[in-house]
Amino acid sequence: MKTEIQKYFETLQDNICRALEKTDGKGKFHQDIWTHHSGGGGCTRVLMHGDVIEKGGVNFSATSGILSQNMAQRMNVEPIGYFATGVSLVIHANNPFVPTIHMNVRYFELENGKYWFGGGIDITPMYVILEDGIRFHTGLKTICDKYNPEYYLKYKKWADEYFYLPHRKEMRGIGGIFFDYVAEDEQTTKQNIFDFVQDVGDFFAPFYTETMNLRKNTPYTQEHKDFQLWRRGRYVEFNLIYDRGTLFGLDNQGRSESILMSLPYEVRWLYDYQPEPDTEEAFTLSYLQPKDWINLSQALKQ
Amino acid sequence: MKTEIQKYFETLQDNICRALEKTDGKGKFHQDIWTHHSGGGGCTRVLMHGDVIEKGGVNFSATSGILSQNMAQRMNVEPIGYFATGVSLVIHANNPFVPTIHMNVRYFELENGKYWFGGGIDITPMYVILEDGIRFHTGLKTICDKYNPEYYLKYKKWADEYFYLPHRKEMRGIGGIFFDYVAEDEQTTKQNIFDFVQDVGDFFAPFYTETMNLRKNTPYTQEHKDFQLWRRGRYVEFNLIYDRGTLFGLDNQGRSESILMSLPYEVRWLYDYQPEPDTEEAFTLSYLQPKDWINLSQALKQ
Repeated sequence: MKTEIQKYFETLQDNICRALEKTDGKGKFHQDIWTHHSGGGGCTRVLMHGDVIEKGGVNFSATSGILSQNMAQRMNVEPIGYFATGVSLVIHANNPFVPTIHMNVRYFELENGKYWFGGGIDITPMYVILEDGIRFHTGLKTICDKYNPEYYLKYKKWADEYFYLPHRKEMRGIGGIFFDYVAEDEQTTKQNIFDFVQDVGDFFAPFYTETMNLRKNTPYTQEHKDFQLWRRGRYVEFNLIYDRGTLFGLDNQGRSESILMSLPYEVRWLYDYQPEPDTEEAFTLSYLQPKDWINLSQALKQ
Repeated sequence: MKTEIQKYFETLQDNICRALEKTDGKGKFHQDIWTHHSGGGGCTRVLMHGDVIEKGGVNFSATSGILSQNMAQRMNVEPIGYFATGVSLVIHANNPFVPTIHMNVRYFELENGKYWFGGGIDITPMYVILEDGIRFHTGLKTICDKYNPEYYLKYKKWADEYFYLPHRKEMRGIGGIFFDYVAEDEQTTKQNIFDFVQDVGDFFAPFYTETMNLRKNTPYTQEHKDFQLWRRGRYVEFNLIYDRGTLFGLDNQGRSESILMSLPYEVRWLYDYQPEPDTEEAFTLSYLQPKDWINLSQALKQ
């Protein structure tokens, strides 16, 4: 099954890059093939200065090696062999009304037969647009509900907790889903989980290309651009201070440029910026807390 | 002595801000007085968009409280009361030929009578200029040698190791000195260490204002500016991933805006940028490794 999973991730990367290039209309992905020091390797694709996408990276990897002492201890096993494969991506757009998005799907296997899937997808609007947030969360709920009525609430809560900056007391965006260490049990099979992971992976391109098309022509001012650059600072803070994937990758001597492709092109740090009350900017900040997007959807319909 | 030390740090902040405003000619420091959740507080001063300084922060604090379990464990004591005071600053300039600089001097005291001084000063040129590096390191060596013939080499090595980005295999700049846990012993008194710390604190303003004056009018191109924005990304990476002061401050619920005032105004992340061989940019990167600046000085004189 390992081969089938790896094959799916490789094809997913291809499909996503094709869809993004097509919707962007101008930008092309540059590709770097690399090898990992202890085995396997990956393929990093980065698109810079497109029409819609300012900087986007889509990374595939399939690496193997022996668990470090640290990792082995954390997993409560001897330092045995592992295999890890996955796709991770982050897209930053030119237009402040096109949200930044992140997706990651991954599979991890130990020599002793233990395995698990993990992943997540979350959006970070520079300006929160309720319609996009609702479309995103209801789309994710539909996928989750196909597999387990508890998945959406459980994985949505996990994302709310994971994509959080304690020192800012705010989320980096409006969440999504996050899951880890998912393996077969009495209720589900390995194939079933793999199907779920594929549905999450396949959700990205249609959702994001639709969002690109909806928002890419929204007119914006220099003030909107300034706010976008400031919001990106929080994204960098999250990725460099808290993101486990980033810190684990750097710690484990992963390829820095592939790991840090997640950082935006242009970023600004002001000192003690606070938006004026009752502005679009204040509205956005008020939504960077856990929200019930499904009920919000129903409330707005009424 | 605690009061005298705190008083010195307060005056140091005043003197430094006055010297920077005078040399900048246009920028003025904005001041925020804040209190710490467990006792004491501080004064953060930030200058934005000056003539020479793009963003500069000079922070004074004197806080007290009870050691957290984590800190107490690390110090191998019970969670007793502490007092901490110090000045820390980071200055980022508009002109790519004016280096970024950081300085920190601090004093820490425990309820049980244990105390220590710490501090450091390091420069991060966007473009390495040998003359500035030599003037900086020989100035620091002169101060160190007044107190102990071993200080310079010991504290310079500590800076080379501390201001290092393992994932980039490079230093964030060209180092300086770094010291911590310095207390009286058979060779030195508390007053003697305090004098050393004062000399380090007093070294900053004359050195940096001279450098500002020397480099502020150096003509530069868009290419130089682009390289500066890229180099600043490494500065952010160091501060958010590795800097103990930053991570400790955020972890300890310090005032985020005072801690993160160290981040530059504008920053860029490219993907896999590599300078062309035999360029100014390649020259700079080749100097982001430990160097013997004192011998370099003698070699250049011959």
